[in-house]
Amino acid sequence: MKTTWDTRYSKRIDFMKESPIRKLLKFTEMEDVISFAGGLPAPKIFPCQQFDEACSKVLKEKGSIALQYGTTGGYTPLREWIAENNPIGIKVSPDNIIITSGSQQSLDMLGRVFINEGDHILVESPTYLGALQAWNAYGASYIATKIDDDGLIPEEFENSARCGPKFAYVQPNYHNPTGVSLTLERRKRILEIADHYGIPLVEDDPYGQLNFDCEPIDSLLKLDSYYRNCPGNYCGDVIYLGTFSKVLAPGMRMAYVIAPLNVINKINLAKQGADLHSATFNQVVTYEMIKDGFIDEHVQLIRRVYAQRRDIMLDALEKFMPEGCTWTHPKGGLFIWAFLPETIDTTELLAYAEKEKVAFVPGIQFFPGNHAMINAMRLNFSNASPDSIVTGVKRLVAAYNAYLEEKGDH
Amino acid sequence: MKTTWDTRYSKRIDFMKESPIRKLLKFTEMEDVISFAGGLPAPKIFPCQQFDEACSKVLKEKGSIALQYGTTGGYTPLREWIAENNPIGIKVSPDNIIITSGSQQSLDMLGRVFINEGDHILVESPTYLGALQAWNAYGASYIATKIDDDGLIPEEFENSARCGPKFAYVQPNYHNPTGVSLTLERRKRILEIADHYGIPLVEDDPYGQLNFDCEPIDSLLKLDSYYRNCPGNYCGDVIYLGTFSKVLAPGMRMAYVIAPLNVINKINLAKQGADLHSATFNQVVTYEMIKDGFIDEHVQLIRRVYAQRRDIMLDALEKFMPEGCTWTHPKGGLFIWAFLPETIDTTELLAYAEKEKVAFVPGIQFFPGNHAMINAMRLNFSNASPDSIVTGVKRLVAAYNAYLEEKGDH
Repeated sequence: MKTTWDTRYSKRIDFMKESPIRKLLKFTEMEDVISFAGGLPAPKIFPCQQFDEACSKVLKEKGSIALQYGTTGGYTPLREWIAENNPIGIKVSPDNIIITSGSQQSLDMLGRVFINEGDHILVESPTYLGALQAWNAYGASYIATKIDDDGLIPEEFENSARCGPKFAYVQPNYHNPTGVSLTLERRKRILEIADHYGIPLVEDDPYGQLNFDCEPIDSLLKLDSYYRNCPGNYCGDVIYLGTFSKVLAPGMRMAYVIAPLNVINKINLAKQGADLHSATFNQVVTYEMIKDGFIDEHVQLIRRVYAQRRDIMLDALEKFMPEGCTWTHPKGGLFIWAFLPETIDTTELLAYAEKEKVAFVPGIQFFPGNHAMINAMRLNFSNASPDSIVTGVKRLVAAYNAYLEEKGDH
Repeated sequence: MKTTWDTRYSKRIDFMKESPIRKLLKFTEMEDVISFAGGLPAPKIFPCQQFDEACSKVLKEKGSIALQYGTTGGYTPLREWIAENNPIGIKVSPDNIIITSGSQQSLDMLGRVFINEGDHILVESPTYLGALQAWNAYGASYIATKIDDDGLIPEEFENSARCGPKFAYVQPNYHNPTGVSLTLERRKRILEIADHYGIPLVEDDPYGQLNFDCEPIDSLLKLDSYYRNCPGNYCGDVIYLGTFSKVLAPGMRMAYVIAPLNVINKINLAKQGADLHSATFNQVVTYEMIKDGFIDEHVQLIRRVYAQRRDIMLDALEKFMPEGCTWTHPKGGLFIWAFLPETIDTTELLAYAEKEKVAFVPGIQFFPGNHAMINAMRLNFSNASPDSIVTGVKRLVAAYNAYLEEKGDH
């Protein structure tokens, strides 16, 4: 049905593209489909009982606060808790923190506050799709910067930095989509280069606490404090994006930004117009959930479960994937990044995978620039059960064979 | 502390202004301050126990859905419920509905989807501040259109429509800030004019169910269906903004947009980049709260409580306000709009009111254009208790006298 509205869309609509992951969601929601596509946590270990207790306590004791409008900056006790207990171990004032409705909103707010049409943003290549989606709406361009098994390559970063991006966007830990982490040495080097060229950094860290078999590496934010001779104190050149989605539950949409006070004030202004504030109820309940240390204990459980699933997926890939395929070996997070032989187009492969009732995300979606790898795919290991992971990999191989066979026919 | 970030703000930051209401919030949160400033529901009648039961049920029975990522469009049963039970009594498909994180986000999404820098939007004068805030970020200009005690004046609307606005934004019921409602006759006339000039309408209706001593008037959306000879079916020329903030609780941030399918698809795209989706938990809990008719019963209670408070405020104004003051007599909603004598600047008066520990919003804030009335003020009657309302009005009068006295001195 055509309406008067159809002739009236904004120009920025043309910049926006649908996420292929969101598109896949309908397919992956079908029964007996095994999905390696989304970045979904394992629902079996959602702390439902703890949430139930927290909701009940909050509604009995603080209902009139939790159900009411709140300040745009966020619930003060929650901001204070994050200031004191943030996973990066840095001293920061609650005034440097704003609560957002999930990290996607943090990215959107950064876009709104910083990006003019045509601005160049330095991003890893591949990078998190949601960041591209958020910033496309503001007409961003990207300086795609290569990464390898140790994360962002400093020489490449320096080349990109020379182009004068407005800021650089980095995921140092268990990077989405590749699962790789930036080494300590490279982190230090990246900070030096960023400082040299005057490029501020956005550090997106949704998975930092999900380290399986390694000690966590210091965040860029923390390393920056050493670099600037104020060890352990927030210096303001790195904006840090944290979230409770991966350590509690994504369905609560609770995340935060750590940023310089001036930037927080601008985000606050932007957020007033965007949604007034994030749900008070979710903030008060999140605070109730985490204030007595539950999160530490729960993160242990998540690590155990995800590490096992990663191992099972790596084993299955090793066992069943045909020759010529390679993949990353992440030490944490949610994703493995796999390469099929160079002639294979994973976007085409997906149609065959759908017939076999298994889903993944074609790698091409994560590339901001021209040098996309058509033979890459992102595999999520956190969501499917151990049994399903093995079956899913087998289905993937069946899809691959069917694809090859048909391709060979033409 | 200055950082590298400070030189990098987007141009649109200059368009954004802080809401004076948000600014006032710190003052109004102080103990013994009586606030007529915000648009806050009465916390005493928040249905805490029902929320507690709903949360518990959801977490026990549907935790793995409610705590997980969801689709951008929103929880299907909730959209289906709204399609069937919307307060405007129109037949609409769940596909014409998208769930948002409060009506402020609905406004933001409309801005993102429709407004280019410099676009003209037809708005009532005065109008809802949050709409201006949302759309300022996209560089909107406004065609300010006069209203009177019967709402938007058709002749004025026609004059504005001739200027070719991108769309018109109207609050027909218990308008914020004035409390007035658009008469049935005028609604029909507005639709005719809009149709004649090809101007699509956004109908914002947060208070429509809060009618105290009158039958609700048909929504523009419903009247449009008659006008277009498809009575009771959604025609697509009016976009309708609904919310659960005033009938359940604003702290859950649950609202929705009814729009043509094409527009819903664009909003969906915009929302993917903005926050992926509104909190699944809040959607499932809201559905659980409303699915068995609780909302009807609860709205009765809200109406009784607010009607009483409105009466008490009207009585107190009548009794204590000095000669030369007038005010509206709303038949529902949350607000009274008062005028002091023409020489009084309510922005200046606010400083005196703060000394007397009472808050209101100076009327000037709600005017999109040049013809602001400096002597107007918005008074909220839903949030303060009956006793406080009387005391608050007395304080207001004391502030007024102190202001006059000091002004006379100079």
